[in-house]
Parts: sequence; C-alpha cells; structure tokens
Amino acid sequence: MSKLGETGLWELADYLASDMQVCNRVIVERMRSSVPLISQLVKHLVAAGGKRIRPMLTLASARLCGHDVSEGQLRRAEIAACVEFIHTATLLHDDVVDESRVRRGLASANAVFGSKASILVGDFLFARLFQILTIDGSIDVMMILSHASAALAEGEVMQMTAQNDLSTSMAQYLQVVQGKTAVLFAAACEVGAVIGGANPEQREALRIYGDNLGMAFQLVDDALDYVADQEVLGKEVGDDFREGKITLPVLVAYERGNEEDRLFWHRVIEESHQEEGDFDHAFQRIMATDAIGVTLAHAEDYAEKARKALQVFPDSVLKGLLHKAVDYSIKRKN
Amino acid sequence: MSKLGETGLWELADYLASDMQVCNRVIVERMRSSVPLISQLVKHLVAAGGKRIRPMLTLASARLCGHDVSEGQLRRAEIAACVEFIHTATLLHDDVVDESRVRRGLASANAVFGSKASILVGDFLFARLFQILTIDGSIDVMMILSHASAALAEGEVMQMTAQNDLSTSMAQYLQVVQGKTAVLFAAACEVGAVIGGANPEQREALRIYGDNLGMAFQLVDDALDYVADQEVLGKEVGDDFREGKITLPVLVAYERGNEEDRLFWHRVIEESHQEEGDFDHAFQRIMATDAIGVTLAHAEDYAEKARKALQVFPDSVLKGLLHKAVDYSIKRKN
Repeated sequence: MSKLGETGLWELADYLASDMQVCNRVIVERMRSSVPLISQLVKHLVAAGGKRIRPMLTLASARLCGHDVSEGQLRRAEIAACVEFIHTATLLHDDVVDESRVRRGLASANAVFGSKASILVGDFLFARLFQILTIDGSIDVMMILSHASAALAEGEVMQMTAQNDLSTSMAQYLQVVQGKTAVLFAAACEVGAVIGGANPEQREALRIYGDNLGMAFQLVDDALDYVADQEVLGKEVGDDFREGKITLPVLVAYERGNEEDRLFWHRVIEESHQEEGDFDHAFQRIMATDAIGVTLAHAEDYAEKARKALQVFPDSVLKGLLHKAVDYSIKRKN
Repeated sequence: MSKLGETGLWELADYLASDMQVCNRVIVERMRSSVPLISQLVKHLVAAGGKRIRPMLTLASARLCGHDVSEGQLRRAEIAACVEFIHTATLLHDDVVDESRVRRGLASANAVFGSKASILVGDFLFARLFQILTIDGSIDVMMILSHASAALAEGEVMQMTAQNDLSTSMAQYLQVVQGKTAVLFAAACEVGAVIGGANPEQREALRIYGDNLGMAFQLVDDALDYVADQEVLGKEVGDDFREGKITLPVLVAYERGNEEDRLFWHRVIEESHQEEGDFDHAFQRIMATDAIGVTLAHAEDYAEKARKALQVFPDSVLKGLLHKAVDYSIKRKN
C-alpha cells in the first residue's frame, strides 16, 4: 500500500482490503498463459503494481449499491480485474507508442521485453478480459467495457494527432482527456453499479462520478508532469514535455505567454527542437503564467461535479471514502 | 474478385456474392470513427482489400447449417465482419512487429501511417468488434471469438520466441501455425455454425474443417514465401527468410542439409547475418532437400482431414465449394 501514500485513497484501499486481495489474486491467475514469455512479462507488470484505482472504483461502486459483501466478492473481483486489464493493456501499448523507458518507478515492459512483446501481450490481455467477461455473461457489463475500450483507443489516437500541435483547442484537449482517462474511470464505476444491482439513477450517478473523477485525475496528472517530485512520481518528470504532448499547462502557458514565450513553445513543442535547460525554462514559464493554477482550478471543477454526483446515495462510511478519493485525485503527489 | 484468381475460392466468393456485399458494407460502416486518422487508416485497409477468406468461411458455414438466406443475411454479415476485424487488427499489429513495409501489394498501414497509428487503430478495431458482438448478444459467439483472439495473441508471441531459433521442434512449429492461423479459421467456421443453428456434430465438424484448412493454408503460405511469384504474391517473397522466421521449409532444409548447409542456416537464421545472394542460396538448398515437397505433403494431410470433416453434411453445391476451398488452399499462388 506504500504506493498510495497518506491519502484518501489509502483509506479506501484499507476499507476494500479483502476485496482487493481477491482481485489481485484474480489478476495474477487470469493473466497466466502457457506461453513462457507472456508469463514473464506479466510477472513484471504485477511486480510493478500500481495504484489499482480503477478496480478499486469498481469494487467500491458495487459495494455502495449493496452488492453482497461475501457472496458477491469473487464476481466483483473478476469484473474489477477486467477493468484493470483494459488499463494494463493500454499502458503496455502506450509505452510502445510513447517509447517510454520508465513506468511506475521501474523499467517499462517495453524497455525490458521489447516493443514487440509489449504489443502482443497487450493484445493477449485484451482478448483474455473479454473471455472472462463472456464467461461472466453480463451483456450490460460487456457493453460498457467494450464501449470504453473503443473510446479509449479513439482517445489515444486523438492524443497522437494533437501531439506537437499548439493550435489544439481547449475543447479538443478535454476530449482527449475524456477518451484516454475519464471514459475508463466512468466505466469502472458503472460496471460496479451494474453488478451491485443499482437502480438507473444510482448507475448514472456513479458513471458521472467516475467520469468527473477521471477528468480531475488526468488534469492533475498533466500538472504533475511539470511540478512533481520525480522520486515520488515514479516516472520521469517532463515526459509529456519531451514527447511534445499537448496538455493544459502548455496550452495555458502558450495562450497567456508573451511573444518570446510563443516562440519558445513553438520551437520545443511544434518543432520538437529541445535543448538542455528547456524543461527548466518551460517550468518557469508555466509557473509565471499560473498555468498550473488554471489547470488545478479546472480539476477542482470536475472534482466538485464528482462529489455532487454522490448525493443520490445516503451517507455511509464508503460514500465518505469515495469523497476522499476525489480529494486524493486533486491533492495527490504521484 | 481479381485477388482470388481462377480458383475454387473464386467460385465460393461468387456463390456468396450477395452475403459478401453486405459483409463488405458492414466492414466499412463499422470501422468508421469520428476520429479522422482512424477513418483514413481504415480507408487504406479497405482499399487494400484482401481475400476475405475468413468471413467467407463464416458465411458459408452458416449457410451450410441452414441459416435463413435472406432474413439471416445482415446478422451473418455482422458476425463475419467481426471475424475479419480480428484478422485485420492482427495484421496491423503484425506489420508493426515484423516491420513490414508491404501488405497485399500496397504499402502497409505501418509504412504509410506509422507504427503508433497502427497499434492504436488495431486496438480500436478489436474493441469495436466486441461492441458489435455484445450488441448481437450471443454468448456462444463471444466465447468462441474471445478465445480465438487470446490464442491468436499467444500464437504470435510463440512465433516471436521461436524466431531465429533452429532448435524449434516440428511440434512447436505446428503449435505456432495452429495459434497464428488455424485457430481463427476454426473460429470463423464455428461461429458460422452457431448462428446457422448447427447441431453439436455439425458445429464440431465445421470447427475441425476450419482448423485443418487453416493449417494447410498456413503451411502453403510458408512455402510460398520461398517459391511464389512476387507479383502474384502481393508482398515481398523472402519476407520470412529476412525476418529469420522459422517455418517448415527452413526446418526441413536444415534437418536434411549437410554440414555446409547447417552452417549456412545458422548464419542467416540464428545470427541474422544475411548477405546478398543468400536468399537465392536458401531457395536452392530448400529445393535440393525437397523441403517444399515435404511442406506441401503435410499441407495435403491437413487438407484431407478438412475434406473428411465435411462428411457429416449431405452433398450440396455449397459443400462442393467448401471442398474446392480446400483445393485452393493447397494450389494457391498467393
């Protein structure tokens, strides 16, 4: 649990400890393959761990809707594991696309096993999760997760297209964030609601909660790429910058910048021509234009919508922890 | 239909012309996305075409089991399109893994749009097909196709692991062929049987037919990589050789070769050290050891099993054409 720090997410993880234990076991068991290289790569992924925020959202949503704590546990864990598989497969392919060398403080699978293995094992995980969902048999769950997977891939393509393009609009940027992150957060919550036997109002509330939590989470992620402590972040600070990724801090710093700033951003982002010291300069210009402040203010707006969505549920310990998860998404350092 | 040549497959395509028309329309419609780059890449794929042998197998299997010719057409076409999507997504990722520049006589998507776009659009297609299957709602069909997709990815990983390894056994080689090709041929036929309302015996017969047809098809593919006419093949002859792929022609030529041959194969396959003229020499040694003859004899064994599997069905025009498809898989030139 060390990866979760002293945050609201730690408390949620603690509350869900038994469910998460089963979920982690399911993840390991279901990732297994008779093909040795797949098992090796998968071990690497499991060892690298991660926050597992998405499966936690599935488990929490199911429980909030009254899913049977003990009898429902295995099914809940299986569906939560499938949500994590979508995320893991996406990360594997993302690291190939972005040529990332570090992920979660460890060498990326891509760096250790090569991009070919990462592509194929991502495909394997994706197929495997649909096998599990098919055996589970809920058309509703499959509908939500296949839709989320398609939207995720579309979000990744949109992000790639927007790369290095400073004329990206705020609306386009938010659409990318929606696709690459919020859609899966929303789906994670919604499938939890479905298996928890939610009524339509509860289901929609949890979908909206996840969607807005995901937006806040990703906006903070984009800010952290510039302002995080590298040790705490678990990956290299400035990754987005070096890849020429368009994120809100950059868009704001560009829009609010003077002519010199604009020339700078053009060179480093559009022309991908970066020199030593450029990241420090970018950081300085981002701070000078309060681009982080603007980004976090947007994140806070989404966070507020996420909190509001929970109003349809009566107060409970778990509801309180889902509120704290929102606080975490805003205040997190990694 | 020019890609099908004057073969048994042409006749099958002709018989299924109306179904294939609907299927091709479904492929174009369902591949669509609001993300421009996805649409562009997909247009490229559709233009490149291909034999569409897998969806044809689905359509033919459904019809052989008595699927309603007119009322069942759209559903049949949708499921057949999903089978083709699995194949297309796999090809997209394969071309990235193999760094192929040419596919079906045209520049590969990878060469035109880059490997990042190919990875992400492959993911999109894969997610999209599970959306379509979910809307269709047959758990049986989803079970077969998600299982085939997982086995396909495992087959690709096995092939990658065996690459450049001359100690690969015949059994391992056949397992790779099974995974990368036969599994999807079998699934294509089996889902056709399922939607056609087959009884268990018919369903199993068509699965076995597809499995063996796929084995024969891939073995001939491996032979063609050495002996085909490049113009007719639609991709570069010698691709497998240059990638150090272990295929039956190589395994036989290595096993039957003299000491000089073995040194040659070690250098070009295991050490990936290839010089000009090496492919011609490889071709010459493959012919001298009758490695193509052995490969085609194995293919013929599988073809015979495929033919035998059809015995459970009463004679009909369509059954005759499925026999001809087996002949085609053996005699094809591309």
